[in-house]
Amino acid sequence: MATENTNGMAFDYADRIVKQVLTAWDGQNKHADKFINKYDDAFYLNEVAPGKNRAIYLIGHLIAVNDDLLRILGLGERLYKDLDEAFIDNPDKAIQHIPSISELKEKWNNINKILNDHFSKMSVSDWMSRHMSVSEADFAKEPHRNKLNVLLTRTTHQAYHIGQLNLINGD
Amino acid sequence: MATENTNGMAFDYADRIVKQVLTAWDGQNKHADKFINKYDDAFYLNEVAPGKNRAIYLIGHLIAVNDDLLRILGLGERLYKDLDEAFIDNPDKAIQHIPSISELKEKWNNINKILNDHFSKMSVSDWMSRHMSVSEADFAKEPHRNKLNVLLTRTTHQAYHIGQLNLINGD
Repeated sequence: MATENTNGMAFDYADRIVKQVLTAWDGQNKHADKFINKYDDAFYLNEVAPGKNRAIYLIGHLIAVNDDLLRILGLGERLYKDLDEAFIDNPDKAIQHIPSISELKEKWNNINKILNDHFSKMSVSDWMSRHMSVSEADFAKEPHRNKLNVLLTRTTHQAYHIGQLNLINGD
Repeated sequence: MATENTNGMAFDYADRIVKQVLTAWDGQNKHADKFINKYDDAFYLNEVAPGKNRAIYLIGHLIAVNDDLLRILGLGERLYKDLDEAFIDNPDKAIQHIPSISELKEKWNNINKILNDHFSKMSVSDWMSRHMSVSEADFAKEPHRNKLNVLLTRTTHQAYHIGQLNLINGD
């Protein structure tokens, strides 16, 4: 009886904790959303600090990183791999032709909608399964290298850059 | 049988996920540690961007917020509540007399050691119990307002400010 209770509660716990991590992830996306929709397009060409990344670069970077979740979580082909050159593989201003902020906004909204659709169907077991950048052999030895861990690291990664973006508007 | 297996796995899952959240928390502390121990004392008087918070302010802020975990997680009395005036209740430069960076370093190391000692003894059930800023009645209706959720929000909060701190050194 005691064991059953413990296990029963533990099951609820795992489910609840996964939901809480998803809420944390979603919270960071909402912070970024708010920033992305707050200003005129020209504003996003400002640097977060003198000589540092422009807002448009960090926004493109966050889109490319979110888009890569499709691959690393095994959810399907990436939609915007072409963003990597300007926003992941190279520093800001290295690539001259980049998408406009309105194009980026559309991609941001689209990738996040698609991710949330996938996430809403994923079970605790799905989240605890290996991500696509770790081999089955390595995952057997290091079971924390699961999909939920990817989402955790991406959540703090977003917070890191949102902290920088918010320096522009005085927050 | 199937149920037992499911529950048994779920128990492992909850335990594993809590560990992963603790690792994420610890990772942010390590990033902050690295920053705090990287430069001469005078460096920390720099602003993260012109007219923005100084590094010493953000460091004091992170210490005060970590210290407040003792209270909100019900682990005991706060050690450094006197930091709140300069680093939480007021913006940077509003309070003239603040501790030196070497005093702050000592407090940072001490509070994090104490927190980690507490955390190493906490079970999944402990983490899923209510935090001290929510009433029992509200917690019954909103069980996600638990201690683990506090740790999640503090983890993204740290990442947010570390992103800002790292603007100073060109990262």
